[in-house]
Amino acid sequence: MVTLHLNLFIYPGGHHEAAWRHPDSAPERVLDISYYQELAKKAEAATFDAVFFADGPALADNIRYASRFRLEPFTWMAALAAVTEKIGFIGTASTTYSEPYNLARLFASLDHLSKGRAGWNIVTTGAPNAAQNFGLAEHPVHAERYARAEEFVEVVTKLWDSWEDEAFVADAESGLFADTDRIHPIDHKGPLFDVAGPLNTARSPQGRPVYVQAGSSEDGRSFAARWAEAIFTAHQTLESAQAFYADVKSRAARLGRDPGQVKILPGISPFIGSTTREAQDKHDELNGLTQPAYSLDVLHRLTGADLSSYDLDGPFPRELVDESGERGVSSRSRLVLDIVDREKPTIRQLMHRLAGARGHRVVTGTPEYVADQIQAWYESGAADGFNVMPPWLSGGFDEFVEHVVPILRKRGLFREEYTGSTLREHLGLDRPVSQYSPAHPDRQALTKETA
Amino acid sequence: MVTLHLNLFIYPGGHHEAAWRHPDSAPERVLDISYYQELAKKAEAATFDAVFFADGPALADNIRYASRFRLEPFTWMAALAAVTEKIGFIGTASTTYSEPYNLARLFASLDHLSKGRAGWNIVTTGAPNAAQNFGLAEHPVHAERYARAEEFVEVVTKLWDSWEDEAFVADAESGLFADTDRIHPIDHKGPLFDVAGPLNTARSPQGRPVYVQAGSSEDGRSFAARWAEAIFTAHQTLESAQAFYADVKSRAARLGRDPGQVKILPGISPFIGSTTREAQDKHDELNGLTQPAYSLDVLHRLTGADLSSYDLDGPFPRELVDESGERGVSSRSRLVLDIVDREKPTIRQLMHRLAGARGHRVVTGTPEYVADQIQAWYESGAADGFNVMPPWLSGGFDEFVEHVVPILRKRGLFREEYTGSTLREHLGLDRPVSQYSPAHPDRQALTKETA
Repeated sequence: MVTLHLNLFIYPGGHHEAAWRHPDSAPERVLDISYYQELAKKAEAATFDAVFFADGPALADNIRYASRFRLEPFTWMAALAAVTEKIGFIGTASTTYSEPYNLARLFASLDHLSKGRAGWNIVTTGAPNAAQNFGLAEHPVHAERYARAEEFVEVVTKLWDSWEDEAFVADAESGLFADTDRIHPIDHKGPLFDVAGPLNTARSPQGRPVYVQAGSSEDGRSFAARWAEAIFTAHQTLESAQAFYADVKSRAARLGRDPGQVKILPGISPFIGSTTREAQDKHDELNGLTQPAYSLDVLHRLTGADLSSYDLDGPFPRELVDESGERGVSSRSRLVLDIVDREKPTIRQLMHRLAGARGHRVVTGTPEYVADQIQAWYESGAADGFNVMPPWLSGGFDEFVEHVVPILRKRGLFREEYTGSTLREHLGLDRPVSQYSPAHPDRQALTKETA
Repeated sequence: MVTLHLNLFIYPGGHHEAAWRHPDSAPERVLDISYYQELAKKAEAATFDAVFFADGPALADNIRYASRFRLEPFTWMAALAAVTEKIGFIGTASTTYSEPYNLARLFASLDHLSKGRAGWNIVTTGAPNAAQNFGLAEHPVHAERYARAEEFVEVVTKLWDSWEDEAFVADAESGLFADTDRIHPIDHKGPLFDVAGPLNTARSPQGRPVYVQAGSSEDGRSFAARWAEAIFTAHQTLESAQAFYADVKSRAARLGRDPGQVKILPGISPFIGSTTREAQDKHDELNGLTQPAYSLDVLHRLTGADLSSYDLDGPFPRELVDESGERGVSSRSRLVLDIVDREKPTIRQLMHRLAGARGHRVVTGTPEYVADQIQAWYESGAADGFNVMPPWLSGGFDEFVEHVVPILRKRGLFREEYTGSTLREHLGLDRPVSQYSPAHPDRQALTKETA
């Protein structure tokens, strides 16, 4: 069955910046694994494809006013995998601030222990203050980070391929534990990495974790077209999402990849009510709990504009934004500026607009309306599915599961039950053949040529 | 209640090199997390202090003939913590091949999700082939590795201390999520590391993981005296264990530490039978399953002697061992040479002697005999407890739990039930005060001086 894909993107407390102050919220549980285990079990009961975790190796500057912990994804996902059976886990990990051998081991192990449910959201890390936690004078520039990401992914792919599937034998009778003829040193020597390999564990159930990516810059799209099997992306309008969808799929096709093997998953943050009014009230309630000291800081980071001396109910001073800088503006900042140009908001309106899901699309309305929006994007070449970003947890997710999922199922858009058991199977992605296996297409071609 | 401490040291398949070929063994499950979850639950039911995992970031050369996988400890321990409630988890991680910020996050997270059950076996990594997985031309020499370890532990200790216990507030009413006055940048600038901090999560239940250490070299002992709260060590004789125990405790005392806060835990690998003969038969059965190609390789690595052209039933050619090299011999190799000098074994006898537990002490006999040995070491200043290394899993562990643990309990040596809930509580170790807290002794002293 062709189905749309749904991930639950878990952010401690929820995605709205004031989520942790919601009366339903349990901020004292943001470091309690049982809270996340309950969420993962709910998402599994709702037959979601995966749970998704963001990450970054530095403390958010604005933790004073918001639940901006980073949950270390590997340990967290392993503890969730242990209490679930089907749902996948997509964890963010940085190619800038980790070593390929260590990262390859962590994901291989997660894929083993979850029996094929691991996905890797590949990031180069946007937060500049991470550099100072790793002995760097400053955060490497965008192009440098992407160059490292390219070679990094090449190295870990080789490591995950270094054991052919058949290498793990464990034949007690003959005494052969591993067929070392099928375990391959990778001997990678590149401009940035020098890694001998092989990996120190057998090939994992999925061969490799699912490669997920979230950058929308030029470098990001080019990287995604080459490597990504799923893409998490932020769009405010159908047109923007359609253009992105078409662009990335055609880039992948030009590189000889099957565009169907690249799933596009925009973020969506739903406020749901039995009436539009009720949904809007829920949204307003959370907006009312925001704290200007925090929201202005977010805006400052995104636009470079210091708004602390401005009237919050006056218009956003567009002229403060400098777009001429050496690096231009990031794709996330561009999205904010587009909102400003399109909607001409006051500062407070813009603060509330972004409070919802850090620039991701907020949809406010009845369950039918939310389902309509999902269906419209899914059926018009804008999305293969969505990263669902509940405004607050767990109530905001409960409402989606209770009211929207049944509609999507009724319309034949979303699965009634899991048909596979690995994340690749949920997403309709092929299991890759090891590049060192005689069954790999390149080697087969070689054999034919020789013959 | 004063109690001896018992850890279950889990090695895939078991500690005897032929364990995976044992008729009871399930080699096809060595990558199946449920197999380890069953073991951890058994160890918890037996009120063990902790489960212990070795590690190294490289593939063992001799995986052809033995179950020499490395289970990535963080993911593995998280998945075991998720299905247990009391037992601790001690994981090995290298200061040579990881970054302090990443390692600090992984352990803080493990301590959070396990609610205070994490321990870190601090190693500098002995296997020279790890270097080639991390872009190094060669493995750093011993002294260099220990210099890095010293500064590494200093850095991660600061990171784990960077949030005072009271910094995590989460007061929805006032809107204060974290008291940033109680979150401290560490601004570490040393010869090897430059790390700004703070950590991006709140202080964990134990403050820091329990610091465990396993090196017995001069550098290792000096490091242990300064940092270790538990020490895993290998001794073949009571005298050797007593000398080590006295030495490390007095070194700690000379540094102003309470020697009671340093627990000494030798390895012990028990073969248990209802008669001595039956126990010996079990040992012989496993020895009979060893493979000379593997065992000779182990001996070659430990002694530098290539024995492939020698008669296995002839005497071990002591003269082949060169002890004059620049680095001398490692503490593990010294232990092997001591066996040779003391017991004058044939090559095959030595192979079998080492097959049991890689140089750790093998005890073969009735349950009473095994309990007597444990009691003797515990009561004569040789051990505060033991790292139990079952020759094969899980049968070899089941026998220990079923037959030896009840005797230890009857003699009042081992707890009947857990009295605490964290690993520190099980081991009788203090919870450290953050070095940034006003309650830290150094700061209190400072306050008194000023007053």
